[in-house]
Amino acid sequence: MIQFQCDYSEGAHPRILEALAKTNLEQSPGYGEDCYCAEAAGKIRALCGREEAYVHFVVGGTQANLLVIQAALRPWQGVLCASTGHIQAHETGAIEAGGHKVLPLPECEGKITAEQVEKAVQAHFADEAREHTVQPGMVYLSQSTELGTLYSRAELEGISRVCRENGLFLYVDGARLGYALASEANDLTLPQLAELCDAFTIGGTKQGALFGEAIVLTHPVLGKDFRYLVKQRGGLLAKGRLLGLQFGELLRDGLYFELAAHADRLALRMQQGFLDLGFPLYCQSLTNQQFVILPDGLLEKLAEGYRFSYQARVDGTHSAVRFCTSWATKEEDVEAFLRDLERLARREKQ
Amino acid sequence: MIQFQCDYSEGAHPRILEALAKTNLEQSPGYGEDCYCAEAAGKIRALCGREEAYVHFVVGGTQANLLVIQAALRPWQGVLCASTGHIQAHETGAIEAGGHKVLPLPECEGKITAEQVEKAVQAHFADEAREHTVQPGMVYLSQSTELGTLYSRAELEGISRVCRENGLFLYVDGARLGYALASEANDLTLPQLAELCDAFTIGGTKQGALFGEAIVLTHPVLGKDFRYLVKQRGGLLAKGRLLGLQFGELLRDGLYFELAAHADRLALRMQQGFLDLGFPLYCQSLTNQQFVILPDGLLEKLAEGYRFSYQARVDGTHSAVRFCTSWATKEEDVEAFLRDLERLARREKQ
Amino acid sequence: MIQFQCDYSEGAHPRILEALAKTNLEQSPGYGEDCYCAEAAGKIRALCGREEAYVHFVVGGTQANLLVIQAALRPWQGVLCASTGHIQAHETGAIEAGGHKVLPLPECEGKITAEQVEKAVQAHFADEAREHTVQPGMVYLSQSTELGTLYSRAELEGISRVCRENGLFLYVDGARLGYALASEANDLTLPQLAELCDAFTIGGTKQGALFGEAIVLTHPVLGKDFRYLVKQRGGLLAKGRLLGLQFGELLRDGLYFELAAHADRLALRMQQGFLDLGFPLYCQSLTNQQFVILPDGLLEKLAEGYRFSYQARVDGTHSAVRFCTSWATKEEDVEAFLRDLERLARREKQ
Amino acid sequence: MIQFQCDYSEGAHPRILEALAKTNLEQSPGYGEDCYCAEAAGKIRALCGREEAYVHFVVGGTQANLLVIQAALRPWQGVLCASTGHIQAHETGAIEAGGHKVLPLPECEGKITAEQVEKAVQAHFADEAREHTVQPGMVYLSQSTELGTLYSRAELEGISRVCRENGLFLYVDGARLGYALASEANDLTLPQLAELCDAFTIGGTKQGALFGEAIVLTHPVLGKDFRYLVKQRGGLLAKGRLLGLQFGELLRDGLYFELAAHADRLALRMQQGFLDLGFPLYCQSLTNQQFVILPDGLLEKLAEGYRFSYQARVDGTHSAVRFCTSWATKEEDVEAFLRDLERLARREKQ
Repeated sequence: MIQFQCDYSEGAHPRILEALAKTNLEQSPGYGEDCYCAEAAGKIRALCGREEAYVHFVVGGTQANLLVIQAALRPWQGVLCASTGHIQAHETGAIEAGGHKVLPLPECEGKITAEQVEKAVQAHFADEAREHTVQPGMVYLSQSTELGTLYSRAELEGISRVCRENGLFLYVDGARLGYALASEANDLTLPQLAELCDAFTIGGTKQGALFGEAIVLTHPVLGKDFRYLVKQRGGLLAKGRLLGLQFGELLRDGLYFELAAHADRLALRMQQGFLDLGFPLYCQSLTNQQFVILPDGLLEKLAEGYRFSYQARVDGTHSAVRFCTSWATKEEDVEAFLRDLERLARREKQ
Repeated sequence: MIQFQCDYSEGAHPRILEALAKTNLEQSPGYGEDCYCAEAAGKIRALCGREEAYVHFVVGGTQANLLVIQAALRPWQGVLCASTGHIQAHETGAIEAGGHKVLPLPECEGKITAEQVEKAVQAHFADEAREHTVQPGMVYLSQSTELGTLYSRAELEGISRVCRENGLFLYVDGARLGYALASEANDLTLPQLAELCDAFTIGGTKQGALFGEAIVLTHPVLGKDFRYLVKQRGGLLAKGRLLGLQFGELLRDGLYFELAAHADRLALRMQQGFLDLGFPLYCQSLTNQQFVILPDGLLEKLAEGYRFSYQARVDGTHSAVRFCTSWATKEEDVEAFLRDLERLARREKQ
Repeated sequence: MIQFQCDYSEGAHPRILEALAKTNLEQSPGYGEDCYCAEAAGKIRALCGREEAYVHFVVGGTQANLLVIQAALRPWQGVLCASTGHIQAHETGAIEAGGHKVLPLPECEGKITAEQVEKAVQAHFADEAREHTVQPGMVYLSQSTELGTLYSRAELEGISRVCRENGLFLYVDGARLGYALASEANDLTLPQLAELCDAFTIGGTKQGALFGEAIVLTHPVLGKDFRYLVKQRGGLLAKGRLLGLQFGELLRDGLYFELAAHADRLALRMQQGFLDLGFPLYCQSLTNQQFVILPDGLLEKLAEGYRFSYQARVDGTHSAVRFCTSWATKEEDVEAFLRDLERLARREKQ
Repeated sequence: MIQFQCDYSEGAHPRILEALAKTNLEQSPGYGEDCYCAEAAGKIRALCGREEAYVHFVVGGTQANLLVIQAALRPWQGVLCASTGHIQAHETGAIEAGGHKVLPLPECEGKITAEQVEKAVQAHFADEAREHTVQPGMVYLSQSTELGTLYSRAELEGISRVCRENGLFLYVDGARLGYALASEANDLTLPQLAELCDAFTIGGTKQGALFGEAIVLTHPVLGKDFRYLVKQRGGLLAKGRLLGLQFGELLRDGLYFELAAHADRLALRMQQGFLDLGFPLYCQSLTNQQFVILPDGLLEKLAEGYRFSYQARVDGTHSAVRFCTSWATKEEDVEAFLRDLERLARREKQ
């Protein structure tokens, strides 16, 4: 059984395990105050061109999201996002558990636009009874999105401008940021991203680490005393060194970007396979998540040898499903899949 | 300037002011442990035919809603409601501030159906990744709804059945319950309501009191230790007597229902006026809130003498607006309004 | 049975009831946006000499406390107060329900000192592991305190200085502020109080109103968007007019201060009675709450005709109890009490 | 520089690193639904003799504490604990951030007694105004405590009995449970612990794992839907396998208990060294944390070669400090320390 179900099925890139083994008996101060975290944070600041940015490492993405949003919002504020945004759809109400309403906007291929944000913000402040509704205080985006798509530089500039004109924070969830940056469709650099938003994450869990997300806070209001908040919400890892060490390794010699490029390339190989056989895409992703519409009968056959995830019913006989590649996906597994797909598709048609 | 903007513009029915004056220097125990609260609670239990129900009085509707929902839900649960539901649309995220996500469903004339609830609940529990999403734990309805419409007895029975089969609480926000019960379209009695749901409120603020909502908890789990919660959220009135006394007065000799019937009757008088002039209703309300679609030019003229509230833009030249009557609305004001409406409408057409 | 148990047994000063009756059928905008609230807020600003202060009216003291503290603190901050402080001792964890730890300091006669605050703050910031503990973000005082005592002007200046040097907000709970200002022991004016702290309340509930506390926010950070928060926590009264009207009446012609002076004078009359009979005071209060140590046998007899509240056991045969006067206390009731006390005390001794 | 500062300075026992390397490229389902978690949970249930217990793995101790307490308490309830309890002293108000007041009781050597708990609970329920104070809903203990001491079986039975008689949950924080179970002073077995409390944790972070705490819920009310809560608070590890695998390894062949016994033995070796030189203990610990009172001059010298942590000032020239051993402490480091201590102590006396 070969897994294309998600991008966190395996452990970590071997270099990370080697580094863990090599440093295992070193004695380090706890809670991220060690030299590995300092070094990794330094690398991230340099890559972003933001020497003054605050960098914190936490174990997971939901934790990163809830911490940044908690630090940013006043009690009566909420966070605008796509209706497919992870915080709206897949975090069990983590943001609401912190007291804040998520304010979903209709999405198109997993994205929202500057115009939508501007309209929502203006509608709120134009409302005479606005104090009876939740005030938008932040915009949350994912890059790449939950549907594998990308915000272009121009799109992000537009949203950033609206946020700054209206006093909203802009936060980019980068659980899959590597896959975005490595995509052939990408026109946004890390320093540009850092400049355009107030906070973002660099995902490790889905991109070669055992676990770990780097939180980068470029707005000074968000950074102040952030460690208190991390500790309070249970996110301060005792052996924080484990996080710094992993990011240090991923960011050395461009490994992080190499791994992402590998995954993106294999994903596009799969996409081409679907298109060659005439199967329509569910959305136009050029990153490691591919969404395709397949006949239910074919899906049943495929499920005997491959795991993938169900996205949505399209009509009485077709469904959209997701195939993920990752840093760990093997070329031969993709090839085997494409051969089986072609064979099964042909049989299906007969 | 005559107000049809809301149903809480005036003070209280004169009998309430008289009772306040008469008892002003009596010395009572604080925090609702006085004889007036006990008496009013007893009357409510009797009217509902639920001798074991817990009855609490609080000052306002948002407070009542957040308390009941806080008492009912586990931390990871949310509350299903119409997208027009007051808790979703007009309480500044009060439910989320208590940690719970509101789960809006598409509404039709302000209402949701048993089928919608069942589908949402089943979709949640059928989802393999359900622990990554908010679990529905309660259904919130308003009676009458925010659009003035009513749940019929059959509709409420359907929703109640789905809730009980699936372990959800059912809560009915009765900020305008009197106007519902007094409506000629109503087929639901107070004992039936009490039987079908686990908690509901009986609104005073909009129906003759200075302020006050009675919370009726028929499910024992909700009632236990509820007073702690009321105190904790700042809802325990020091001179609780003021609440009991008002409800006692409203529920004596059927005053509460008389006042509501008066408002409903005048509202239908206004509705007939709109229909006679050919103006379409925005929704079919038979209670004290009337929603009608009028030409923008006419609205501008009307606004010189009357206050009403804006609901929605319908097309380039028409808007939906709301007119409210209340226990305090004067027949002559309605008649004056209808005369002016007819005059202005005629001029408009020329 | 005569009540000295608390200062909120009765209704309101007759002038308030008259004003309610007189204005009952006026139509006002809701939620505090009426002319009565505007006028009362203006009076308060003028009395405080702070034209730019934000003034909001809410129904009760716990609500006022939780709102101000919620507006002031970052998520990881807590509030320093006396261990007898109302937020620590008698609000069912309302502050914690809002996410913030109360940080009690040992009290002396219900008060804490600038030195205590300074030491606590310095200890926190000197701690290398401070991010593992709650950061003090505010000091909460009550004036008069829960034990009837007063902060002198010099004491408040000291605490204010420490707060400002260390970036803490200073908040004064004035549920009994009138009784403090009217006390012969007081040397602090309202403008001085307003200058020294960042937020305070002016209590109505215990000082002549049916209900109501005025929140005065002199620090601009606290005032911004505060109404959203009031609505969110269920504190925005629909007929907000009722609050403005009551404060307007109390603050007209100095009524508020007259009523407080009346209560203080009768309280001192009672204190003198205790001292004349040789009963020691539990603490040195010169305001409307008197704490005295009496023999248990005598208390049992007194309880047949008077209600008062139990404070603490002092030894095997003596207890400390509290007697409250209020704006509504009758001189003849105090005289009757003192006669009974003397009679019973004499019999006790025999 | 040799570290005795804490018990989480190093990485993990080599067997854990080997297991991670060996399984690194296996493809597992995420979020703890893999075979390693299932196996480790099974082992824990068997060791506790509680086949029906719910077992969950999370990354850290603060997270475990906040999750269990959040699952257990109603909104108006608080948790009783020693004033030195980790949740009161060192978690940045994590419990309050979840809405619940921590109710500290005076401690003796880090412990509280059944009598204290009973008195606190009875005082609450006997109070007529109890609804104005936080209701005790749980007792939190640590085993071993923050001062290295142990609850005996009889002591825990006493507290358990009081809890059950009064409807409180009993939760034991076992961040250092191994060190407790392995102590020569211990008379409590794991099945007995599981029987006496409703929830407890088995610490991994400080006892041989890279990270990880096992949460064991023996009360069914706590277990239901707990995974939703873990996800919501950011505690559900994507590659949950990492937790199961580590616990599986630690619990195979008794490794967990061996490692703890090693640390306890070396700690007692240090204790004997202090006593031999006449230095008084700060408290009587027979586990891996040793608290001793030393002259400040000596501490300064020791600090040149060893790291330890400061506990408290004892008098003008003496302080209490903590020395920790762990599974990773080397016998030769302890011996070197004791030699240096003796040498420096002798010089100090001259």
